[in-house]
Amino acid sequence: MSKDKAVREENYSRWYNDIVIKADLAENSAVRGCMVIKPYGYAIWEKMQQALDKMFKDTGHVNAYFPLFIPKSFLSKEAQHVQGFAKECAVVTHYRLKNDPNGGGVIVDPDAKLEEELIVRPTSETIIWSTYKGWIQSYRDLPLLINQWANVVRWEMRTRLFLRTTEFLWQEGHTAHATADEAVRETEQMLDVYADFAENWMAIPVVKGIKTENERFAGALNTYCIEALMQDGKALQAGTSHFLGQNFAKAFDVKFTNKEGKQDFVWASSWGVSTRLMGALIMSHSDDKGLVLPPKLAPFQVVIVPIYRSDDEFNKVCDVARTIKKDLERVGISVKLDDRDTHKPGFKFAEHEFRGVPLRIAIGPRDIENGTVEVARRDTLEKEILQVIDLPNKLLHLLDQIQQNLYTRALQFRENNTRRADTWEEFESILDEPGGFILAHWDGTSETENKIKELTKATIRCIPLDNQKEAGKCILTGNPSEQRVMFARAY
Amino acid sequence: MSKDKAVREENYSRWYNDIVIKADLAENSAVRGCMVIKPYGYAIWEKMQQALDKMFKDTGHVNAYFPLFIPKSFLSKEAQHVQGFAKECAVVTHYRLKNDPNGGGVIVDPDAKLEEELIVRPTSETIIWSTYKGWIQSYRDLPLLINQWANVVRWEMRTRLFLRTTEFLWQEGHTAHATADEAVRETEQMLDVYADFAENWMAIPVVKGIKTENERFAGALNTYCIEALMQDGKALQAGTSHFLGQNFAKAFDVKFTNKEGKQDFVWASSWGVSTRLMGALIMSHSDDKGLVLPPKLAPFQVVIVPIYRSDDEFNKVCDVARTIKKDLERVGISVKLDDRDTHKPGFKFAEHEFRGVPLRIAIGPRDIENGTVEVARRDTLEKEILQVIDLPNKLLHLLDQIQQNLYTRALQFRENNTRRADTWEEFESILDEPGGFILAHWDGTSETENKIKELTKATIRCIPLDNQKEAGKCILTGNPSEQRVMFARAY
Repeated sequence: MSKDKAVREENYSRWYNDIVIKADLAENSAVRGCMVIKPYGYAIWEKMQQALDKMFKDTGHVNAYFPLFIPKSFLSKEAQHVQGFAKECAVVTHYRLKNDPNGGGVIVDPDAKLEEELIVRPTSETIIWSTYKGWIQSYRDLPLLINQWANVVRWEMRTRLFLRTTEFLWQEGHTAHATADEAVRETEQMLDVYADFAENWMAIPVVKGIKTENERFAGALNTYCIEALMQDGKALQAGTSHFLGQNFAKAFDVKFTNKEGKQDFVWASSWGVSTRLMGALIMSHSDDKGLVLPPKLAPFQVVIVPIYRSDDEFNKVCDVARTIKKDLERVGISVKLDDRDTHKPGFKFAEHEFRGVPLRIAIGPRDIENGTVEVARRDTLEKEILQVIDLPNKLLHLLDQIQQNLYTRALQFRENNTRRADTWEEFESILDEPGGFILAHWDGTSETENKIKELTKATIRCIPLDNQKEAGKCILTGNPSEQRVMFARAY
Repeated sequence: MSKDKAVREENYSRWYNDIVIKADLAENSAVRGCMVIKPYGYAIWEKMQQALDKMFKDTGHVNAYFPLFIPKSFLSKEAQHVQGFAKECAVVTHYRLKNDPNGGGVIVDPDAKLEEELIVRPTSETIIWSTYKGWIQSYRDLPLLINQWANVVRWEMRTRLFLRTTEFLWQEGHTAHATADEAVRETEQMLDVYADFAENWMAIPVVKGIKTENERFAGALNTYCIEALMQDGKALQAGTSHFLGQNFAKAFDVKFTNKEGKQDFVWASSWGVSTRLMGALIMSHSDDKGLVLPPKLAPFQVVIVPIYRSDDEFNKVCDVARTIKKDLERVGISVKLDDRDTHKPGFKFAEHEFRGVPLRIAIGPRDIENGTVEVARRDTLEKEILQVIDLPNKLLHLLDQIQQNLYTRALQFRENNTRRADTWEEFESILDEPGGFILAHWDGTSETENKIKELTKATIRCIPLDNQKEAGKCILTGNPSEQRVMFARAY
């Protein structure tokens, strides 16, 4: 497994792809741009879903399900929206195949052409707001706080496993409110939920901020985001929350009677995170020995590998291992006992290391005699001999430490790689090497933003929410600026 | 709400639709044949998913995710399969829209035509077996025990909420095995899991059986099913489990090296249940007062409705209600306190009754004085006054009783509506009134089966697994038969 492994420092892109493939997380499918999420990868995604779903429910949201298909005309109803999504969508035009009369297998039946084409949802604002029209009459029907777990399709030209795929899995929240204030508060609340999840579950520090007009969601008045920094110095947008104003309510004529008996359009938010988070997770923590998983999202937190020479030893060691497994499970630790007799311990060590299992326990006949086990941490690669006595509490503590260490390490990395640039030369030079986040002055125009992107491929990741006002001069134009914004090259 | 309600005995079909709509379970969407699953309906589906998912994992299965799209050519690789699914599929032919140069909004971009059309999955055997080819080389890679939660699309001409929709949600298990025996055991095991779920969670008794050749899944050697009887005397297929033999392995050239070092094709099973189960749940238990839910699948098992005359009383009652809620939640009962001050208790009673909440607690100032509450059961509509002391245990017991009673009632109904027919006249007469399951002799030919279907719309639901052999004569042809099979008209 290790022979043909890419080294992170040398070929980051190949290193990333190797981890996805060799840790059995996902692979490309026979369908262009669509991935297969393999069981081990999907188990991580399930853990993410569970944690997020609970956070959504704890903040008053409920789940529902809306159609996969969107009538073409719906997409056009919001002018910005259609510009943003029409260029990359899968279009259903027919509803039947038939046998080729010329014997060429099955062909599309030309008689089964749809009157109006259907778009496979790239996002569901339009179909959902057309539905909300029937659900909302009065302020009593508000707020609507609804989330959907779904697959979506965007016809991307260049795809990369998890980071950018034609089909991906995500959740999309779509809320409806009586006032602008309430909708903005919701938008901000969900940004906080995402930041909380990224930091406390994924162990990834994020910068909360606002997108510039250029980078806004198509149809939003304001897009909030969380931005994370990957180990190659590139940024990754890990979640977005949009204040949609009354745009979709107006597009689909969704009005309500307020407390004063007057009609008004409904205010909206939408917010989403996707399987792209898997990419962020992989790129934030992993190393040349493979995937590194935070304990809170690992499919199993501890793997036990028996060490033995004979069948008799194997059975004895496995008996003890099973007891340890039960003891650990009793305190809520998830454990896999790797009792395959088809593979040697060394192979198992490498495999579980590559798959990012946070803790490995090795146990052999001598350990049994001594009442000990060998415990190896995936994050630091440190090993220690521990007495079996009180092992569950010791491991709970270690798992906490690993979770914390991954976060601290990533935060340290981000701090070391967040720099100020005050001149264009400085800006360009940092971007090329070492990369990272760059805080720099910008004159506030889309024109300058576009020009910078054209020249350097760097974009304004966000205007951080906790930004200090500071007078300065735009790095490109020298025009006055009232605050620094955060630039980076990004995924 | 009750004024325009359909009565079950008079118009079963409208009664069903009323419940779906008025209990806020689902509605038709703007997209032909596709439904919106509303939050209350989706919460029931989530409970079903959780229970099933745990059962799948307890039997060694893991989840994964495969692409939504299937290349047209894949569908054709298994001859039976394409015949079964080509006629009703959504076909993606283009991947981009563009602005109409003539100003007619957006149109499909003719330059963005796919080289090969993509089918929106009606089921995933083909895409999954094309993937398994890369995963299976040796007997060591087997068995593969994989499940997928997904949406699928079948272009149905006549749709009904939950029962038959163009898009529906489901799970599909796809397993790969080294021997035919093992694949058959898996097929049977999953049938047992489905029966267990139907009976112990949904409170619906089911007959386990085998489909005739006519009714088999397209591409299967054998289809097992569970069949339930609805209150109008029609059958509903609630789940299927297929033994696929080596058909898909052969279609996608999936071979493995067995322990003896020889190459062989892999053996397969697939099995699925869908949001159709929601239809079965509704039709099995509900009555003229609306939905009736088994406690194990109710989004909340108990609703507390405060009774009050003044604001002061409202606050006092709500305080007590909150304490009761906490006490109940402590023993694992899910509770909603309906403390809306915009609706009267009578309205709330009717609403929660219609939405099938298993237990309703009413509590007013006099109850507080007496240390009592009024508890109403949704299944029997009985009310009783209970002392608050030890209420959690009393309600746990009641919820168990309701779960059990729903099952017993449904079983009784099915037993009362399972009849033997020995002549054609008897057969036709039972079918017309009262309907139900009919056990009758059949000569074993597809021809006779088709003829019976043509004449009566009844189909052979299954050959029950626990069938006794019994010599007799086919009700249509008089030809010899060695066992009765189970007929019914079906959804």
